[in-house]
Formats: sequence, structure tokens, C-alpha cells
Amino acid sequence: MSFDIQKVRKDFPILSQKVNGRPLVYLDSGASAQKPQVVIDAISQAYSAEYANVHRGLHYLSNLATENYERVRAIIARFLHAPHEDEVIFTSGATEGLNLVSYGWAAPRLQAGDEIVLSVLEHHANIVPWHFLRERQGVVLKWVEPEPDGSLPPEKVLAAIGPKTKLVAVTHMSNVTGTVVDVGAIARGTDVPVLVDGSQGAVHMPVDVGALGVDFYAITGHKLYGPSGSGAIWISRARQAEMRPFMGGGDMIRTVTRDSVDYADPPLRFEAGTPGIVNQIGLGVALEYMMDLGMENIAAHERSLRDLARDRLRSLNWLSVQGDAPDKGAIFSMTMEGAHAHDISTILDKRGIAVRAGTHCAMPLLEFFNVTASARASFGMYNTAEDVDALVDGLTFCRELFG
Amino acid sequence: MSFDIQKVRKDFPILSQKVNGRPLVYLDSGASAQKPQVVIDAISQAYSAEYANVHRGLHYLSNLATENYERVRAIIARFLHAPHEDEVIFTSGATEGLNLVSYGWAAPRLQAGDEIVLSVLEHHANIVPWHFLRERQGVVLKWVEPEPDGSLPPEKVLAAIGPKTKLVAVTHMSNVTGTVVDVGAIARGTDVPVLVDGSQGAVHMPVDVGALGVDFYAITGHKLYGPSGSGAIWISRARQAEMRPFMGGGDMIRTVTRDSVDYADPPLRFEAGTPGIVNQIGLGVALEYMMDLGMENIAAHERSLRDLARDRLRSLNWLSVQGDAPDKGAIFSMTMEGAHAHDISTILDKRGIAVRAGTHCAMPLLEFFNVTASARASFGMYNTAEDVDALVDGLTFCRELFG
Repeated sequence: MSFDIQKVRKDFPILSQKVNGRPLVYLDSGASAQKPQVVIDAISQAYSAEYANVHRGLHYLSNLATENYERVRAIIARFLHAPHEDEVIFTSGATEGLNLVSYGWAAPRLQAGDEIVLSVLEHHANIVPWHFLRERQGVVLKWVEPEPDGSLPPEKVLAAIGPKTKLVAVTHMSNVTGTVVDVGAIARGTDVPVLVDGSQGAVHMPVDVGALGVDFYAITGHKLYGPSGSGAIWISRARQAEMRPFMGGGDMIRTVTRDSVDYADPPLRFEAGTPGIVNQIGLGVALEYMMDLGMENIAAHERSLRDLARDRLRSLNWLSVQGDAPDKGAIFSMTMEGAHAHDISTILDKRGIAVRAGTHCAMPLLEFFNVTASARASFGMYNTAEDVDALVDGLTFCRELFG
Repeated sequence: MSFDIQKVRKDFPILSQKVNGRPLVYLDSGASAQKPQVVIDAISQAYSAEYANVHRGLHYLSNLATENYERVRAIIARFLHAPHEDEVIFTSGATEGLNLVSYGWAAPRLQAGDEIVLSVLEHHANIVPWHFLRERQGVVLKWVEPEPDGSLPPEKVLAAIGPKTKLVAVTHMSNVTGTVVDVGAIARGTDVPVLVDGSQGAVHMPVDVGALGVDFYAITGHKLYGPSGSGAIWISRARQAEMRPFMGGGDMIRTVTRDSVDYADPPLRFEAGTPGIVNQIGLGVALEYMMDLGMENIAAHERSLRDLARDRLRSLNWLSVQGDAPDKGAIFSMTMEGAHAHDISTILDKRGIAVRAGTHCAMPLLEFFNVTASARASFGMYNTAEDVDALVDGLTFCRELFG
């Protein structure tokens, strides 16, 4: 299937909106992506005609909802090329997935003095759960700095691993610089379990967790053009076998008595309570939409946007872009002397251009670049060369205002 | 506003469905409630025209989504009569709320030998998180049995409290028997913090957490006619001040460095990562819909259904109903000699009647009643006297088949 950008854009109803009288230029997909009509329709259909609680019912609607919900596990397995479907654990997003690993795998295994290697590129979701272990049980965080251009050579990560290292926690793609980390090379270079935050990575490139050889791979649905509160984490069977349950409740047990509890087999063991049924059904539709377009086609389209944006932004000699790794994704965090990031965002917004301003949940990385806040333009599958033009024109207007 | 049942029914599109050629008689609201059109429309509207990530943006769509999302906190505060809006913490459902209390409040405070008093009426969501503390740190669970009719006198709960009791965890309404627990009397009778699982209670009666004098009150959106993955827990400021964070990630921090983390003030401290934005927006609409109808009106309608169903089911002398407390809610768990609960459910389903069969995530309570599984009919605001007729006719048909 070829990638027809105008057809793709028509699939996303919000993109035909005007904002402040201007056509919306949505450059905030790194924070959360917009949703295609097929996803919105699937949600309406589920609630209007196919809704009940899952797993524990025997009636028609419950069976139908269970089928619609459980088939998403297979879709996610296909999306991530997971060797086994039962390695896919539904979560409400990457944050819950990463906390599941922290509470379920790391907390009961790591002792005071044990080390977790993580990169300075990480999002707070892949930092704070490890700070918990530092605060609560004396685990040591070992930080690996990126190169000045934001790239993260696998050798640097591997060099930080010592005899006390019990986990490597690293992003697949920085949400600030777009840096792509060669997590496969890291996994091949060590026997230490490797956890990947795929919140950005899985959105922008094909992922094969088996080929990467990692142990944990977390994704979040709302960045994958799917609904709020959807997501999953892939965890290899070997690591699952080492985990204790995280949240307790219905559906994750086999039997409960007053004195004992016997847990269900994975993946249900790690999925307590009524899940985000319709959210996950919507995520399944979003992932099928992406796979129908072709992950390679999406990636190629975004590479062309990245190249164009990089060239155009480089030409603005009054603009600083944090991070410029050669194979980065189409994410650009920017500062401009004399203009606060928040002012840039507000001025661009008046022109219908949505960019984020702040620390992007990545304070250690902003500190590394010695900036307190930046304006970030992050591209999705539906963006165009015209969006790059609008961004450059908007930034130029800011410069004239503040310069 | 008066309660017009035919108008209410028209608001729920799924109720006009046919199942197995018969009009749907949905008696599984205790597992999950159906959604009114206003909720479905609000979700579509949010994704089609008003969507972006919340809190961290400055652009139009982000500001709009943040306003739509944060106003739900005020709606929930009004729904629960919370003294302070910042006592409302968004969750993905009651299970996450109860685990938040277990991990955030109880785990760091309770020592080996400390006791948690809980009732045999509890749902697994209000059991398994406490079993975790028993398994992991030697906390003792003290169980309070209901009376043979399923009622739970507050005095029995209070009598179980000893000098080592650190928490009372109790449901507001049993999801199996419909028993309503006088949680206010329990809270007035002790200084020990009282946690209430309001998963069923908040659906069927007006709740005033301030007047009840409890400490924690968990609700789940999908049972409140709201979306998958929505919910909240009300936690008094006093108890919040004693808690440590549960999940780590974005939005719950003030600053993060390589060596330290400084947490945001409540409620954000307990809300890590991108929340279930649109789910919560839908929940707000669902709660406004309920409050517009009037919680007392809904309760009165359901009392009339309960009285009718109780009378009719009592007349079936071959049917056993577990629990018959005078002021119970409209939930009936039933067994019939010679017919397995699963067969009852399957046969009723052929007649378009949706009931649940199994252990209803409440194994200790089924053990108390000495049954291994039951068929459960649970009523919602949209049920009618005709639904009671259909249930009784269906059960009678089962009896003829198996009798």
C-alpha cells in the first residue's frame, strides 16, 4: 500500500479544524497523537452496540466484548513482532508498564548497592520509577550521557555496565532530540536485562522485539494514534517468570481465600481489575491502521519531513536546536535567544501552530543541554512539507518580534 | 427533574439492540454499566475536535483539553460531596485506587503483626492488595463475617478492631448480595482510618464522603455509566499527607535531577504520566447525567425494582438467593439445584437476558454461602419491571429444563 499523505490527512478529523482562524498545524504528536476516524468510530461502535465487561461473562455482549478486546493482544504481538502473544501485557500506558517492571521485577530483586544503568536521554517515566528504588532500597542509578549531538553510542552504555548492574533502562527514541538508540546493539552486548521505553520509538519505526533481543518493551497507545488510557508492555517469558504481581484485584487470580491467594498465569497475572476494554479495542484499530499504511512507509514519510525540517531550521542562524544525531526522528527542540520557549509556543499558537514548550518530562536532558525550557515541534504521520514551512515562517516571525 | 424511565432507556443506544433475536434485557450492570449517548458523543467530540495532551501545553487544543479534563475533578468532588477538590485523585478505576492506598499509604506504614480489618463481603479488588501486604510484610488480615442474610452490622466490624488495627477496608455495597454497609457508623465508631470500596455504592445511592467521615473512597467510572479506564479515589487531605507516591513518571514531579526527585503537590503527586484524558472527560459527562436525573431519583427507581424482583424471586421456591438484607441494592445472586450457574446464564442469554455467572470476584463470600458459583442479575437505572418479568420467566424456563 502506498502512502498518500492527503488521504491520510483526511482520515484525521481534527486536522481540518481551524485554530485562531488559521488551519491547524499540529506539531505536538510527541506529547500525544491525533486519532483517525476509524479509531473514533470503533469506540462509538463498541459502546453503542458491543459493550459489556470481559472475561467473566457468558452472555452474548460479554463474549463479543471479550473477543474484540483479546484480539488486540494478537494485533500488538504482530505490531511488535512478539514471539509469543502471552508476552503482551495490557497497560494504561507506558508509565504503568514501566512501573510494572519497577514494582514487579526490580523491587523484589534489587539490593542496596545494585545498579541500574540509564541514559540522560530518558523521559521522567523511565527515571522516576528507578528513583523510587534509590530512595526506598538504596539502588544506585548510573547515568550515561549522550554525545553533544544527542546521539547515544551503544558502547557508552555497555561501558557503564558493571558487576552490580542488574538492569539497563533506555529509550528507543528521545522525545526531546529524536535520538534513536541502537537498543539491539546494547542487548547483544550484555547479559543484563534491557528495558526499552518505546513510547516514541514504536510510533516512528518498525519494531521487532525478538530481533532486538531486549527483555522489556513498553508502548503507549495515545501516542500511537490510539485512545487515552491504552497501551501495553511486552515482557519476555523469561522475565515474566521472575516477576511478582504488581496491582492486585479481579481477573489476576485463580483462587482467593481468607488466608491465601493463588495467582493466574501471565499475562492475566499482571492485569488486575476491569481493564481499559474499549481503549484497547481502539488501540487495536489504530495499530491496524498503521500497519495497513506500512510502518516502513510511515517512517520514510517522516524521514523526508525530518530532512526538510532539519535543513530549513539549520538555515536559521539565530535558532538553537538541541540534538542533531544523523538518524534522529522528526522531533526538534529549539531555543531562541531573547525569546522564552513559552512565548514562542504562544506566538506560534496564534498562527494555528501547536508546539509544546517546557521541559518535556526530561529535565536531566535539558540540564545536559544547559537549557531551562525549549519549544518542541514533533511530527507525526499526517504532517506535511507545508507544516515545515509554517513552522519556519512562525519561528521567523518570533525572531522578528523578539530579535 | 423527574425520573422518566422510558426517556432514560432511549438515552442508551445499546438497549435497543436485539440479542439472539430477542430485545436485550441487560442485567449485568454490576459488572459494567452501559453508556448513555451523551457520553459516547462527548468521547467522539473530544477526539474529533478538542484533543491534545493536558497540563504541559500552551497551545489552543492543549489548553482546551486541560480545561475539559480538569473540570471533571470538580464534577467528581460535587458527586462525592468532597470537602476539597484536590482530594480527588484520578485513577483508571477502583482497582488502581485501592492499590494506590495499599502501595502509597499502607505499605510504608504497616509493620509485621499490624492488622487490617476487612469484611468477607469484599470484592477481590479490596482483598488482593491486602494479601500482598500479608505475603510481603507480615500484615495480618482480620475478617468480619456478615450475618446469614448478608448484612454487615457496623458493631461487628468495630468489635474486630484491636490495638494493632491500622486500617478498616470495607465495601459500601456488595457486588454479590447488594448488602449496603453503614460505613458512616463504622467511621464514627473508630479512629482507625476507614477505606471504602465505592465501586457499587456510588452507583446506586447518593454519597457524601464528608458526612460519612471515612478516609478513602474509591469509585470506578465504567460502572458509573462512564468510559473504560476512568475513575477516581477520594482521599482526605490528612491521609494524603501521610502517603508516598505510587507510580512514578511525568506530571507527578516538580523537579527531577540525576540524584534527586522532588514531587508535585497532591493530587498530581499521585497521577503519574499522561492520564486517561478522554476517559475522564466522558466520566464527567456520565456523572452530570446521573446528577441531572438525581441520585435520589435513581435510587428510588432501583428500590422499586429491588422490591419487585425480591418478591418475585422469593416466590420461586426452587431458587436460592444469596443474601437478603432489608435495605440491599438491586443485585441478586442465585443458585438452582440441578442447574449450574453457567448453564443458567447461557440459557437466559438465548432469551436475550444478560446475567453473569461465576464467583463475581468475591470467592470468600461465595465460600461463606457455601456455593461455588452463582448466576447474578444486577440492575441499573435503565432497567424496568418488564426486565424483572423476563428474568423470572427465564429462570422458570431453566427450572423446567433442569428440574
